[in-house]
Parts: sequence; C-alpha cells; structure tokens
Amino acid sequence: MSRFLLKIAFDGTSFHGWQVQSNAITVQQIMCEKLSQMLKSKISVTGCSRTDAGVHANEFYCHFDSPFDISEEGFVKGLNSVLPEEISVFSCQKVTEDFHARYSAKYKNYIYRFFDGEVIDPFSSRYTYKVPMKLNEKAMNDFCKNLIGTYDFEAFSSTKRTVEDTVRTITDCSVERQGNYVILSVTANGFLYNMVRIIAGTALSVSYGKINPDDTQKLIQMKSRELLGATAPAKALFLNKVIY
Amino acid sequence: MSRFLLKIAFDGTSFHGWQVQSNAITVQQIMCEKLSQMLKSKISVTGCSRTDAGVHANEFYCHFDSPFDISEEGFVKGLNSVLPEEISVFSCQKVTEDFHARYSAKYKNYIYRFFDGEVIDPFSSRYTYKVPMKLNEKAMNDFCKNLIGTYDFEAFSSTKRTVEDTVRTITDCSVERQGNYVILSVTANGFLYNMVRIIAGTALSVSYGKINPDDTQKLIQMKSRELLGATAPAKALFLNKVIY
Repeated sequence: MSRFLLKIAFDGTSFHGWQVQSNAITVQQIMCEKLSQMLKSKISVTGCSRTDAGVHANEFYCHFDSPFDISEEGFVKGLNSVLPEEISVFSCQKVTEDFHARYSAKYKNYIYRFFDGEVIDPFSSRYTYKVPMKLNEKAMNDFCKNLIGTYDFEAFSSTKRTVEDTVRTITDCSVERQGNYVILSVTANGFLYNMVRIIAGTALSVSYGKINPDDTQKLIQMKSRELLGATAPAKALFLNKVIY
Repeated sequence: MSRFLLKIAFDGTSFHGWQVQSNAITVQQIMCEKLSQMLKSKISVTGCSRTDAGVHANEFYCHFDSPFDISEEGFVKGLNSVLPEEISVFSCQKVTEDFHARYSAKYKNYIYRFFDGEVIDPFSSRYTYKVPMKLNEKAMNDFCKNLIGTYDFEAFSSTKRTVEDTVRTITDCSVERQGNYVILSVTANGFLYNMVRIIAGTALSVSYGKINPDDTQKLIQMKSRELLGATAPAKALFLNKVIY
C-alpha cells in the first residue's frame, strides 16, 4: 500500500458538499468511484475538509491508499479525463503513510465573495453573493481583525456541529474591496460547521450597522449564535488554500 | 408604443440559444415572459442575433415595444430581480421606432476561448474548449488574417442555414495567446449559421497542420464545408460586442 495526496479544485454548485451522503452526489463519492475504477480496486478517499453543499474549492486536498504504485503525471491525466468538468486534479504526490489530508493540515484559508454593484455579470453570479446595499468594507475589516486569536468560537457554528471542542485559532482575517467586489479572507487552524458563512453573515450585519465591530470580543464570549448575523449563502464561499 | 433597447449578458450553458423553440428553454422566451409579466401585457422581444444552444454573451442587445413609458433605472433593477442569475440586464434605453436590435447592428464581435494547458481550473472549463495538444497560435492567426475581407463564406456555414446570401464582410479576425488560453476574435457585419464555430474548428485544423493557412482564400472559393475543420463546441463561444 502506498499513500497518495491529490491536489484538486471543484465548482461546488451542483454537489452536496464533499462528504459522501446517501441521497445526493458529493465530490468524495465521485472521487472514490473514479479512483476505484482506475485502480480496479475499492479505494476510499479522505478529504482535508468537509465542505457544505454548494461551496467551491480553488484548492482542496485528499488522500487515498493505493494497492499499486502510480505514475504520477500519467495518473493525473487519466483521472482528469474521467472526472466531470466541475472537478480538476492538479497533482498526485506520494506521501508517507502517516500523512493525513485532514489532520496534517496546519491552516486553511477560505474566501467569501460579496458584490455590491448595481448589476453583476452572469458569469460571476454563480460564485458571488450579491447584496442590495453598498458595503462598508472598513467596518467589516475592523470586525474581522477582532476575530484574530485563539478563542472558543462556539457562537460561530451551526447547532448541527458534531465536535465538542470549539476552540480555534484564527491567524488572519480581513476584508478588502476590489471594485464592486468585497472579499473576506479568513485563515485558521480549523473551522467549525458553517463558521466562515456565519463570519461572512455577521460581517454583513456589521456593514449594515446592526452590529458594532467593537463588540466582537463580547459576542465571542457570549457564545450565542442568535446574536450574530445570518449564515451567508454557500455559493460565494471558496476553500482557497491549505497549508501542511 | 415606445421602443426600448436592452443591453444584457447571459451564461448560455443551460439555454437552447436565444431563439424561442417549442420544447426547450431559450433566453428569448425568458425575456418575453419576464417583460410581459412586468409590463402586464404581451411583449415580444427581438434579439440582435440568434445564438446557438450553449453559446454565451458578454454583450447582447434586444428590443421590445412597450405600451407604457418606462423609468429606465428602476426598470432594470426590477427586471434583474425576476430574471434567473444566468441573465443580467445592464441597461434599458429608449430608441426610435425604426431602431432594430438585429438590422441596426453594424458589426458584431465574437470571441472563442481555447485552452491548451495540462489542467484547466473547474471555473473556466464551463466556458472554454480544452484541446489535447499545444496550439500554434501563429499559424492560427495567419489563417484568421486571411479571412478578413468581403467574401462568399458559404463554406463556413452549417448546411442548416436558411439565408440565401452568404456574402459577409469580416473586418477583423485574429488569434492571441494569453498564457494557456488562446483567444480567437472575429468581427463582421454579419455571421452565417455556425460560422464562428467553423472558423474556430478550422483554425484548430490549421494549428494541427492539417490545413495550410496560405490555402485560406482557396478554401473560401471552393465553397465546400467538407474541406474545413469540425464545428468547434458551443460552450467556448461568446458574443462579445455589438456595434450600432
């Protein structure tokens, strides 16, 4: 058995996230099917992250164990030729047996794309949350800066979460305007269920003046989901980078 | 009655082109439905061009006659709010009664997007024709330059075409590399059915050495569709600009 790490990207629009589900098509399911088909044996694939339905990945890693050795370049070509066009494989790299796509990841970076112009072009609307009012990127950025640190982010997670430990370290969080696009970027050692989408939704509440960015620490400490903004739509969220 | 001209853009992936059809969803049909709904009367919409199923438009114009006067800015906002995210309306402008989205158009510019890198990112694959070999953009450009002029482009049209007159004037045609993308751009006073896709497919045959770009004039004169390249896939074609 040899372990291999795939670097992939996917357009999540038509997938129900990464994780295999019984009644919906997921990226993990397709990767398992295509790898099993190519390697002519049952392959399981472990991803670096569960992603919600509709979330995209500019960069996503997954590992699998192969009974055979793999010619890396030829394998990438073959795999791309059988995958749907919504999933691309960039590389396949042999790793040590103890390497784990999820647990070996030190940091992950997500970006969330807002648009506050009048009309969005139809090629971006699939990947962007168009908001009806001009955004205050300065206030949003202030809020984001106040999230940096090691805190119990319990409030910033869906009640559907399954983990006990809700302490995470956000190493970087910022908001930047690019024309009519406002991009939120957040890097952490791990994320809770819906965490980035709740951060994005709360940044929106900050922009609209409903939440004061100076109250960020208080909001973290109060551990109450209800005090934060709505969970922002999945389609504008991208897993952007994974650091091992 | 007042005539209005809409400037729109659409992602053509899930549409069967512009023109209304009996058993498929088209952009024209959606525009008619939504305009009729908003103006509470039966509105017909005339487009600047028929586009094939799957073809996109960065810029597309259509006109309609309204029984009421329209507040242009508010109308654009309202229309965008009822349209699917694959169609965006950029402006609505009052025009004279004799203005015609199709017949008043002087020139149209189309672009065709090839990709010849190893792996295409999944957010571009929807809008790009990935080819298996490195392209010779120099030879493709030579071929394109030889198309410029007023000629009978009968060979460069599908046999399904319905028009009699197959003479068109190509004012500009070129190929440019942008990294792993190779972009073909063609401007003409009009296009025959499938014309740009046949030009793109023939440029590909030129790149692969199957057709000599010096034979372009001969190929135009021989008026034989069979001597040209395949019709390139619709998904990489964009109506890019319309000049009135």
